[in-house]
Amino acid sequence: MALIAQPLTKERFADYGQVIEKDGSESFLINNGNCRRHHALATAEIAGPDCKVGISIFAGQPYELPLQLSLVERHPLGSQAFYPLGDKAWLVIVCDDDNGTPVSPKVFLASSDQGISLNRGVWHGVLTPLHEACDFLVVDRIGEGNNLEEHTFDTPYQVDLAASA
Amino acid sequence: MALIAQPLTKERFADYGQVIEKDGSESFLINNGNCRRHHALATAEIAGPDCKVGISIFAGQPYELPLQLSLVERHPLGSQAFYPLGDKAWLVIVCDDDNGTPVSPKVFLASSDQGISLNRGVWHGVLTPLHEACDFLVVDRIGEGNNLEEHTFDTPYQVDLAASA
Repeated sequence: MALIAQPLTKERFADYGQVIEKDGSESFLINNGNCRRHHALATAEIAGPDCKVGISIFAGQPYELPLQLSLVERHPLGSQAFYPLGDKAWLVIVCDDDNGTPVSPKVFLASSDQGISLNRGVWHGVLTPLHEACDFLVVDRIGEGNNLEEHTFDTPYQVDLAASA
Repeated sequence: MALIAQPLTKERFADYGQVIEKDGSESFLINNGNCRRHHALATAEIAGPDCKVGISIFAGQPYELPLQLSLVERHPLGSQAFYPLGDKAWLVIVCDDDNGTPVSPKVFLASSDQGISLNRGVWHGVLTPLHEACDFLVVDRIGEGNNLEEHTFDTPYQVDLAASA
């Protein structure tokens, strides 16, 4: 089945997590007016003993379009946030959950000024830079315990951008 | 008194927090080899009830050099991490603590590929982009309670880069 990316917006993403972007955010000036704090665009959630919120860098290779989506994953013990450090668009893929099975994938085209935080337990595709390799700052759970579930679709989806994107 | 910035390194910064950079990090491949995870470059620490780790964007105005350093601050209830989203160098200023008073400021020149996480309670200067305005992704404590202490030096320090920088 073909899936076409739609632009990432807070409204479209609300069921899956938070969009980390300055546009439309709550903000206020600090540091004697020299800095505007776009405040708490996302908050991290972690569960289980002996864990912390950590900051990592993911160095991702780009994917070619159309992309064959066969694998999604989820992290039952914590949220996971990504923010691109490059200047190219990237893809965000999430699924609804039907009693432990990912269904109805949604594909969003994120700009280089948009990050996301996936809610704990949300099914998602792997990090998907487009066009060129890109580093992402990642904020997620660091700790013991099994925080990864994977699911392979019997029939891969074919993911592409809209013809005009 | 004049303070000259020295290049930021993990070793020089070890007493104050963590340097968030790929160089010299622990890393491993994920996502079928398409992504290298530079793992847990920093971890967040928060204290007190009703708080979370949050992700914000600080949009900072640039500072001119030499810079007059008169104010430093610290956050007694949590660590605070900064990662630049632009491509210019920036300054990191920290102080030692002497029974609640900041002393002996240190100035580090950070590249656009270096972030930092300040340990909880470390005295530091405000966000200091150089050359041009810059956004930073910030990971810090979101919650109630007084998480800010400020200190004004009787005599400002004069901060500059080394002549060769």
